Amino acid sequence: MFIGIDLGGTNIKGGLVNSEGIILEEKDIPTEVQGGVDHVLSRMADVIRSLVKSAGKIPIRGAGIGCPGQINVKRGIYHQGPNFPGWDGVPIVFELEKRVGIPIVIDNDANLAALGEFAYGGGKGVSGMILVTLGTGVGGGIILDGELFHGVSDAAGEIGHTSIHMEGPVCACGRRGCLEAYVGTKGILNRMQRKLADGSKSVLSGKSGETITPKDIGMAAAGGDATAVEVLRETGDILGFGLANLANLLNIEKIVVGGGIANAGDFILKPAQDALDREALPVVREVCRVVKAELGNSAGLVGAARAAMIAFSNI
Amino acid sequence: MFIGIDLGGTNIKGGLVNSEGIILEEKDIPTEVQGGVDHVLSRMADVIRSLVKSAGKIPIRGAGIGCPGQINVKRGIYHQGPNFPGWDGVPIVFELEKRVGIPIVIDNDANLAALGEFAYGGGKGVSGMILVTLGTGVGGGIILDGELFHGVSDAAGEIGHTSIHMEGPVCACGRRGCLEAYVGTKGILNRMQRKLADGSKSVLSGKSGETITPKDIGMAAAGGDATAVEVLRETGDILGFGLANLANLLNIEKIVVGGGIANAGDFILKPAQDALDREALPVVREVCRVVKAELGNSAGLVGAARAAMIAFSNI
Repeated sequence: MFIGIDLGGTNIKGGLVNSEGIILEEKDIPTEVQGGVDHVLSRMADVIRSLVKSAGKIPIRGAGIGCPGQINVKRGIYHQGPNFPGWDGVPIVFELEKRVGIPIVIDNDANLAALGEFAYGGGKGVSGMILVTLGTGVGGGIILDGELFHGVSDAAGEIGHTSIHMEGPVCACGRRGCLEAYVGTKGILNRMQRKLADGSKSVLSGKSGETITPKDIGMAAAGGDATAVEVLRETGDILGFGLANLANLLNIEKIVVGGGIANAGDFILKPAQDALDREALPVVREVCRVVKAELGNSAGLVGAARAAMIAFSNI
Repeated sequence: MFIGIDLGGTNIKGGLVNSEGIILEEKDIPTEVQGGVDHVLSRMADVIRSLVKSAGKIPIRGAGIGCPGQINVKRGIYHQGPNFPGWDGVPIVFELEKRVGIPIVIDNDANLAALGEFAYGGGKGVSGMILVTLGTGVGGGIILDGELFHGVSDAAGEIGHTSIHMEGPVCACGRRGCLEAYVGTKGILNRMQRKLADGSKSVLSGKSGETITPKDIGMAAAGGDATAVEVLRETGDILGFGLANLANLLNIEKIVVGGGIANAGDFILKPAQDALDREALPVVREVCRVVKAELGNSAGLVGAARAAMIAFSNI
């Protein structure tokens, strides 16, 4: 059995995970980032020790930690990120192994979510897969030849910052036309607000633009709202256009779409697949399927445990 | 010592290549595609036998063959391509091994050019590299974690068909805004012709649009022609925009640019690097350099020999 930890800016989530990817026990405590590096490390160690205790006589062979931001995976060091000030250069693996006495591995949280979906979710059974997570940001991770792909400085997988329009809307990263600017939360809500401003009828018309969420749009579409359906169709179409770039470049079998809006299912995935089938080269599109992520918010935690399984199964 | 073969629609080029990537002996005969599959296989076998003979007492441990089009690498079968009608499904490896009695490996020619540049040219010493070849088509190959990356059906690396503009010019593949439509020969020449039509002064003004070549533009730029310099700068800028997509996605160390126009050197590579530095994420761009290919037309042949070295060095 292995432990997975999902370190977030707000909460530390931990779980005991078996080799089938089932979470047998879960802990969830506030991160308390403001308490400083040592405080948060101690809280992570508490979660790990508590899970080890829950496991009773079953030995825990290691723990994986998913962290937001840039990670030096081989050296086990936090490199940089916006939500953990003062953490640059912290040797998380060394510090945690010292505290808990079991082997630790760390990686970027989006990478580990991709690993989780690959091992136990929407990407099961393939050799090449990309996870695309749609949220405020558009992130993800890449599995190639059956392994998580990191790139030379562990920074690969910035799918949201591949541009599909040199003259498109400005993205948070500064460049124009990034996939994130089109299919991230802001892009989706802008699309809805433009339709409402143009006089399209919708059950969401009454709501001010500020309070509509992607979830509202998904629920409206499920209820038959034509404007919401069209917003999701356009979003899926643009997503598929961007995914065709990934498919032409990497010839993967599955593109697994996660994040809240993916719950809208075929309202967004069907037009994405249609666009991919229209845009990608024949030999590439015939093997590539756009599917829904299956592990929800647990993907990162399960993937973290999976990383530990891969790293420590033979010790 | 190993043999590399570059099978083209017009010529079969073969070479004896040592482990330093030096071509010690070269043969070049017409392909005669119209003679049919068996005829061309016999001609390839002739080239290989002739090179084995040239090697004298030095044993040849294998040969690599680069073919245009889609190849099933593991099975050694030609899959499909525009220039070799009737070749779909031909088991090239089996047929050649039968004829020449040495181990054979085949791969796509652009992939093998990337392997050649990685082992002995512009990508030497890195772990992640992409070759982008600018010509009528824009192709290339991808090296990840020190190995040629093929994708699930050996179709990865279609860099020219990643789009940077959803509403851009229509590409030969049918989609809009492909890198190939902007930085392939046609895109470059269109750019020059637009400038001339707009009244820009150039030593190429006298020439009709039909007869100007990318090489002419490179030479005019080298001679100080401001319009030619600007055409190459714009081309490099757009290339760099597209390369930023690859860098954000794959976090590679080198992007090696080949093809005739790459001989224009910094006229195109400098603006490409500048655009990459402007467009890619900080952690990605700080490790990524745009450099010129070093092996010219021999990249495919040397890469083919290198593939044989990798496949057969331990037999």
